[in-house]
Amino acid sequence: MSSQIEIQRIEKSKIASVDFNNLPFGSVYSDHMLECNFKNGAWQTPVIKPFSPISLDPSSKIFHYGQSIFEGMKAYKDAENNTLLFRPLDNWKRLNKSAERLMIPQIPEEIFMEGLKALLKVDNDWIPTNEGSSLYIRPFMFATGSGFHASPANEYKFIIATAPSGAYFAGKVKVLIEEKYARAANGGVGYAKAGGNYAAQFYPTQLAMDKGYNQVIWTDDNTHQFIEEAGAMNIFIRINDTLITSPTSDRILDGITRKSILQIAEDAGIQTEVRKISVGEVVEAAKNGNLKEMFGAGTAAVISPIAGFGYQENDYELPVLENSFAAQLKKKITDIQTNKVADPYGWRIFV
Amino acid sequence: MSSQIEIQRIEKSKIASVDFNNLPFGSVYSDHMLECNFKNGAWQTPVIKPFSPISLDPSSKIFHYGQSIFEGMKAYKDAENNTLLFRPLDNWKRLNKSAERLMIPQIPEEIFMEGLKALLKVDNDWIPTNEGSSLYIRPFMFATGSGFHASPANEYKFIIATAPSGAYFAGKVKVLIEEKYARAANGGVGYAKAGGNYAAQFYPTQLAMDKGYNQVIWTDDNTHQFIEEAGAMNIFIRINDTLITSPTSDRILDGITRKSILQIAEDAGIQTEVRKISVGEVVEAAKNGNLKEMFGAGTAAVISPIAGFGYQENDYELPVLENSFAAQLKKKITDIQTNKVADPYGWRIFV
Ligand SMILES: Cc1ncc(COP(=O)(O)O)c(C=O)c1O
Ligand SMILES: Cc1ncc(COP(=O)(O)O)c(C=O)c1O
Repeated sequence: MSSQIEIQRIEKSKIASVDFNNLPFGSVYSDHMLECNFKNGAWQTPVIKPFSPISLDPSSKIFHYGQSIFEGMKAYKDAENNTLLFRPLDNWKRLNKSAERLMIPQIPEEIFMEGLKALLKVDNDWIPTNEGSSLYIRPFMFATGSGFHASPANEYKFIIATAPSGAYFAGKVKVLIEEKYARAANGGVGYAKAGGNYAAQFYPTQLAMDKGYNQVIWTDDNTHQFIEEAGAMNIFIRINDTLITSPTSDRILDGITRKSILQIAEDAGIQTEVRKISVGEVVEAAKNGNLKEMFGAGTAAVISPIAGFGYQENDYELPVLENSFAAQLKKKITDIQTNKVADPYGWRIFV
Repeated sequence: MSSQIEIQRIEKSKIASVDFNNLPFGSVYSDHMLECNFKNGAWQTPVIKPFSPISLDPSSKIFHYGQSIFEGMKAYKDAENNTLLFRPLDNWKRLNKSAERLMIPQIPEEIFMEGLKALLKVDNDWIPTNEGSSLYIRPFMFATGSGFHASPANEYKFIIATAPSGAYFAGKVKVLIEEKYARAANGGVGYAKAGGNYAAQFYPTQLAMDKGYNQVIWTDDNTHQFIEEAGAMNIFIRINDTLITSPTSDRILDGITRKSILQIAEDAGIQTEVRKISVGEVVEAAKNGNLKEMFGAGTAAVISPIAGFGYQENDYELPVLENSFAAQLKKKITDIQTNKVADPYGWRIFV
């Protein structure tokens, strides 16, 4: 397979213009990208080529019917300058789960994995080595086929682009527990990384920001009584010494960080529970002092401690803990990702 | 305003290659399109130019976060070769309602209306004159601004493209009343013409097609007990001599055909009801013979009579009526649209 990837190198690298000590998140792009087109019922030869504009007909279905899915992953450097990926096959599987729901063709494992590895080799110098930075990887697929008729397209594009990136959130995160808007329907596409799920969150998130919050915690669309997840993170709640997270469902993304954290926590002897969490329970725990921590977990933000939350016009602050679960778990997962400790799970993959 | 539109004409029209007697729906495109870009916080000068590919950075948010909305309208020719639009300001208003929910900037009335009229003048010859055909008009807006960060873009594109089109559905429509999947969440974006709403319907629709149906009738995501709408049509149900349609909500598109049909029906002395319709009521009416008609109403399909529906593994057929409400109402609305009868409502606009 590897030999079947066509490589077109950039004439002059842009890397000298990048300040690796001050990286933003996801807005500086590496020299190359992988591109593979689906037409006549088959994926064509993948090409690694300069990160460059895509030309699309105005009738391409991506512009009209939202057939668009993506993934988010990271590549890390260890102390020996090896390149590491974290559970990349899980991203590939989830991309295909999203693809199935959005009627986008399945991407073969070889194109995804060999394409990604080849791209990381070509752009090896773009993988940041400093603490807290990484190469954010964005695989995505969308409909290029044409027609003003609401039906699946017959042509698609799969692209992997990368962006050397610093931290996702700067500082403390304050969240608002949503009571009116919703992210996902029962029987909908909430569990897929479908583009449309994200745009749908922007307006309610802006309303929350206008009130001084950074993020929305979504609740079920029917009763708004149960905690679901955040915009790009699953949510963990620590009540006394138990770490709780909502079960996944067709409304909630099955986060790779989430399931890794659950595993690491269990193995570290932390009591975990995967069950529905009512907002009432969280508010009650906040009031009586049993609510010790809340944090988001996701590839982009890794673990993002929540400093406080708003609900029904009230604000609740979380205590500041020494040796929090969030800090312990973040260190553990980051150490595994960057090859600082043993990986008993077989999660990391050398490129 | 009109004078501020820049016009770049195509060198050689493609019109001679089009068979206007055998038009598909929405897949043959006229020579020109209107394009207007939003950047630095403002809409730039609109340009009418050849219908031609759009070049976008791979990091454009349209590819990642689904910030994409559209409208669907039609232009008609009357017997004197005048060009007519049907309630176009309602499309403009709805586009801006969608825009607000998706955090896309509002498009000014002048750019939408004057741009559309100018485009229709430039491509006047593309407006079909034969019965049952029309020029399908597709205004759409999407995020062009860049970044692998789930937040609204800072640059957008507004385009109006057109396609001379024949009928949307060929033949009788059989529908399946959905029991598992859903189109929209409470507090979600179902009422917006957001791209993501359409891709989300493809998979369940394909499952229905595999069982021999053409379309899905969506029900509420919580109980699946109430009729909402179809993929691109609102639904009307005639029980005995009463014509019923669901109220609009944040899950249901406020269809322009729907509200026009309600008005025309009332003025024709047909008893109408806008209220929740339970699936049980429809099945019951089908069983005891009170269910006389079901039809979809939307710009693309105009009025699309439903021949039968499936629910819980059972199939129900609808009677074939002489002088059905569907036929009467379709004739009336089409006659208004094409200037064959008086328009007491002020719905049609001459270009
Ligand atoms: C909606 C949503 N939830 C949760 C997550 C976290 O998933 P993961 O840990 O696989 O990155 C993400 C980001 O990928 C997301 O977009
Ligand atoms: C989901 C949905 N419902 C209903 C309609 C019908 O609306 P209108 O009559 O304005 O075309 C459409 C098409 O525009 C639609 O996409």
